[in-house]
Amino acid sequence: MELAYRKRTQEELCRELTEVRKQHEALKAKGMKLNMARGKPGKAQLDLVSGLLTVVADPDDCICDGVDVRNYGELTGLPAAKRLFADILGCKPEECFVGGNASLQLMYDLISKAFTHGLLHSVQPWSKCGRVKWLCPAPGYDRHFKITQSFGCEMITVPMISTGPDMDLVEELVRDPAVKGIWCVPKFSNPDGIVYSDETVRRLAALKPAAPDFALVWDNAYCIHEFEGDFAPFADILSLCREAGNPDMVFEFASTSKITFPGAGISVMAASVDNLKYLEKLESIQIISYDKVNQLRHVKFLRDKAHTLELMQKHAAIIRPKFRCVLRHLEEEIAPLGIAAWQKPKGGYFVSVNTLPGLAKRTLALCQEAGVTMTAAGATFPYGVDPNDSNIRIAPTMPPVEELEQAMEIFCACLRLAALEKFTQE
Amino acid sequence: MELAYRKRTQEELCRELTEVRKQHEALKAKGMKLNMARGKPGKAQLDLVSGLLTVVADPDDCICDGVDVRNYGELTGLPAAKRLFADILGCKPEECFVGGNASLQLMYDLISKAFTHGLLHSVQPWSKCGRVKWLCPAPGYDRHFKITQSFGCEMITVPMISTGPDMDLVEELVRDPAVKGIWCVPKFSNPDGIVYSDETVRRLAALKPAAPDFALVWDNAYCIHEFEGDFAPFADILSLCREAGNPDMVFEFASTSKITFPGAGISVMAASVDNLKYLEKLESIQIISYDKVNQLRHVKFLRDKAHTLELMQKHAAIIRPKFRCVLRHLEEEIAPLGIAAWQKPKGGYFVSVNTLPGLAKRTLALCQEAGVTMTAAGATFPYGVDPNDSNIRIAPTMPPVEELEQAMEIFCACLRLAALEKFTQE
Repeated sequence: MELAYRKRTQEELCRELTEVRKQHEALKAKGMKLNMARGKPGKAQLDLVSGLLTVVADPDDCICDGVDVRNYGELTGLPAAKRLFADILGCKPEECFVGGNASLQLMYDLISKAFTHGLLHSVQPWSKCGRVKWLCPAPGYDRHFKITQSFGCEMITVPMISTGPDMDLVEELVRDPAVKGIWCVPKFSNPDGIVYSDETVRRLAALKPAAPDFALVWDNAYCIHEFEGDFAPFADILSLCREAGNPDMVFEFASTSKITFPGAGISVMAASVDNLKYLEKLESIQIISYDKVNQLRHVKFLRDKAHTLELMQKHAAIIRPKFRCVLRHLEEEIAPLGIAAWQKPKGGYFVSVNTLPGLAKRTLALCQEAGVTMTAAGATFPYGVDPNDSNIRIAPTMPPVEELEQAMEIFCACLRLAALEKFTQE
Repeated sequence: MELAYRKRTQEELCRELTEVRKQHEALKAKGMKLNMARGKPGKAQLDLVSGLLTVVADPDDCICDGVDVRNYGELTGLPAAKRLFADILGCKPEECFVGGNASLQLMYDLISKAFTHGLLHSVQPWSKCGRVKWLCPAPGYDRHFKITQSFGCEMITVPMISTGPDMDLVEELVRDPAVKGIWCVPKFSNPDGIVYSDETVRRLAALKPAAPDFALVWDNAYCIHEFEGDFAPFADILSLCREAGNPDMVFEFASTSKITFPGAGISVMAASVDNLKYLEKLESIQIISYDKVNQLRHVKFLRDKAHTLELMQKHAAIIRPKFRCVLRHLEEEIAPLGIAAWQKPKGGYFVSVNTLPGLAKRTLALCQEAGVTMTAAGATFPYGVDPNDSNIRIAPTMPPVEELEQAMEIFCACLRLAALEKFTQE
């Protein structure tokens, strides 16, 4: 990173500070109001899948695999929905448990049941284990961290590098039997958009954790979510873990939240047949089945992996210009100043900007003043604390491109302003 | 109960035993195959609500209360769905948390969170409380009992009497601070179909439990489910608890499982605003929202309480003949023998037969031999153990009336046979 600002004199910096402050005031005066805090699809994306609403329209449509989906039953999901997810994930239908609107709920349930009842290979429920530690590759997904925090886990930050989590560190940390699991977003990680390298994936599948009930939580949230270029195939983590002698270590999650409707999708937990047998007994106490009519809607509308990938290309066509807009602004306005670095993701829902230390909170406060709300600073780290106050997650999918252009103008001005404030105080 | 069989001589009984055995053999030979284990609506009922499938058909339909229901957000439920449930339950919209397909899941979550995090007035999570006791009016709903069993509660059976749970006993038991809650199905109790008397409801609302976090779990599963006569209004338990100084003691549940689709309905937890505020914080870790498109479908299709009651009359017209069939067989074939007693419910989903002690298991085994599967004996008691081996739950809604006629012929023959076997051995 070229520290272009560093090369200037204090006088030059002060002059620029005055200019950028004026620019910020002018932007504030525009009275923009834009919430980019979450990775929400925009309206045009939602309109892509309107066919989902009417694809199951009368009683005759409601029979699938001999099951009347309107009635009780089929706790583990509609067989056809399992086949759909197995096709997408590359695993077997019998390794799929199909849930409701939110893979987050399935993940939470897994951790919750680990605490109240234990997992398949637990000696006792985690609530009786004393200290439970959990590995959190960071920057990462705030909702993951909040789950393990909510259950009182001691969260250990593992730095994300360009190939995924720092595996040397992960392999060392799992020797501690109190370490019970790790959050992973293997493809287009949230927020960096990093795709774990083949070697990282293999090393994760081959971990030798001291805890017999260590959980590799594999949140494949963006498994088919390319917005630049063709679909990039990924390995079936269940097979890799099985081959490495860890068949029951992995729990993979995915959903249609960013394929169909975030507010009315379906989700899946994929795991070994032995894991699912164990969890099914616990699930049977909790629910009779998730919404099977909606599972059937998705089966009829998405059909299979190939057809779903066609839909994802339509999503890509809508969101590609938005990501390009973000990256162009960063490239043109920030790169020359040497005050931040970022990945250039080819998929996922975010652009993650790592500023020089100490600029993130101030930048976002300045954005807020100008009417642009982004994900709170720190959110991408355990306990909501970014030790370097550096990471900013940009979620560009919701606003139309025109608004995004303005928002990025504001963002870049605010980041410059924050940097100039800092440099002129030093 | 007139013990008609008791008045006969052993010779008479043996002769009848031979006859009924022959009848049972003949019924077995018919090769019937009918599963009446669960309270499942029949196909004709599901067909009543086909309009639900297409009531939200295009993007313009998806905006409600200014919310695009297809997207993320509205953790506690669509405002219009809260208004619908508040209308039905007689509480306030802000007292409603609207969930997905299963109130069971919301109940499980409440207990689960009590154990992992504690309730609003808990001193500590229940997992740290040592022994947790729970009151189980019985006969009751097996799935309730399985939840508290799954969390290791010590379940205490409270006899159901004609007015609801035996309140003298309940009032005494709640003086024990280890007693943390009670399962209630206040209207058309599962399985007896008993409606709690006004006095019972008032005494429950006015309980003075020693535990500050005692939970009155009010599963109003059949609140508008009359099949004989007009809708019978019920009191708002939230108001009654508030007036009795127990605003945060009660958690009411309901769902559309037996109004629209058991496999694709919506559910509600109603509780004080303070309770919901507390639980919302925990829920926000677990889920972004339940399926809001399906919530909107229900709002548009059911509209309000008055319109929903009209639909319930159509359900009633379908299931009334089934309940009458069951009661007629019992009246004609069993009543004269004095070997069992039963309520004559006006709503709900079950007829509960209490045989002379020691006949339930044998009766159901004989039914099974003849191809009729009913709810397992004992299921209606904590731990699945009926101390008198007496209670049998008949769920007549699924089969068509013609099949039900045959099933009841089989049931009555089997109950007679079980009784005769017993009396001729004594």
